[in-house]
Amino acid sequence: MPKIDFWYEFASNYSYLSAMRIEALAGKAGVEVRWRPLLLGPIFAAQGLNTSPFNIYPMKGRYMIREMERMCAADGRPFVLPDPFPQNTLTAARIALVAVDGGWEIAFTRQAYLAEFAEGRAISDQAVLADILTGLGQDPDAVIAAAETPENKARLKANTQEALEMEIFGAPTFVTEDGEMFWGDDRLEQALHWAVHGSLEGWRVPV
Amino acid sequence: MPKIDFWYEFASNYSYLSAMRIEALAGKAGVEVRWRPLLLGPIFAAQGLNTSPFNIYPMKGRYMIREMERMCAADGRPFVLPDPFPQNTLTAARIALVAVDGGWEIAFTRQAYLAEFAEGRAISDQAVLADILTGLGQDPDAVIAAAETPENKARLKANTQEALEMEIFGAPTFVTEDGEMFWGDDRLEQALHWAVHGSLEGWRVPV
Repeated sequence: MPKIDFWYEFASNYSYLSAMRIEALAGKAGVEVRWRPLLLGPIFAAQGLNTSPFNIYPMKGRYMIREMERMCAADGRPFVLPDPFPQNTLTAARIALVAVDGGWEIAFTRQAYLAEFAEGRAISDQAVLADILTGLGQDPDAVIAAAETPENKARLKANTQEALEMEIFGAPTFVTEDGEMFWGDDRLEQALHWAVHGSLEGWRVPV
Repeated sequence: MPKIDFWYEFASNYSYLSAMRIEALAGKAGVEVRWRPLLLGPIFAAQGLNTSPFNIYPMKGRYMIREMERMCAADGRPFVLPDPFPQNTLTAARIALVAVDGGWEIAFTRQAYLAEFAEGRAISDQAVLADILTGLGQDPDAVIAAAETPENKARLKANTQEALEMEIFGAPTFVTEDGEMFWGDDRLEQALHWAVHGSLEGWRVPV
């Protein structure tokens, strides 16, 4: 079965869109997905950016909010930008790595995104993360302790470093086994097509 | 019949993708397209950018080239980045306005884009533009003279100013009659759906 890596950042609203739909699409395409949390902070810093491009370019930021509202409305959900944006997602990303080991990373990631972008909750706040963990039947104290071990911290750093070395510059980014990189939620279908066919031929009806 | 404005810049490779497919898709959707050339230079300058973001952020620029190659290959065309990138497109955009009056803006725009991005020709060069005009059965000298009148120059400025006032920050951008703005070739389907239905409900199969 072909595989793709789904690189995502908890602060990224377009990663949220992908997190909500990737399993269904990948299942239909017959592609296995590896969920790979990373931190965009160091990746933006490598490009000379000290915050989200949506803050640096306010017109783009206002557009992003409007288009998220439109797309989320079509999925039957409100879109709420958390305050501040972007959220500090260090603990959430560390927890997601613990969740990968336990096999509950999909549920955790989705619940964290819904809290953040459908309810506007501050996932930078450990109490909010604890709430989400409780809702998933996990022991928040045990999970957060596992997330904060030096080994787990190093893992997240190594993940982010691996992404930087591939020249990942934003999220979500999908990477196929043959190393093709697809950036943005709107490239999810292309990435799945490439994973199966090794090209984009036929990925949409030609006009 | 619902209408959309298709705002495009001749230097923009993603505008090229839209120019090649918008008529077929709009025809199928029953939407009329108004072709609106603009200049991104003043629009980027308003955001503090002195060149294309693909030059300012080199990782993004390298990714753009690779993804253009992939998408154009699926359409049976090579992708060639013109040198320099972005091209100076002042004359091309002025010609496009003359072409709108004559009803041949679609043919001219497509031929200019193909010269630029499939053959890597310098459309900043008036001789290349004259070649394209000749190929379309137009008199290059007469068209270029009409393009360079003060009235026509002012028209292009007014177009770009109109785009700036709507907070258009990049190209292609599609604007529906009720003022919704959709940025990027990957939003063309959404723009057409919105033009017909007034929302994104049903624009893709929910997952």
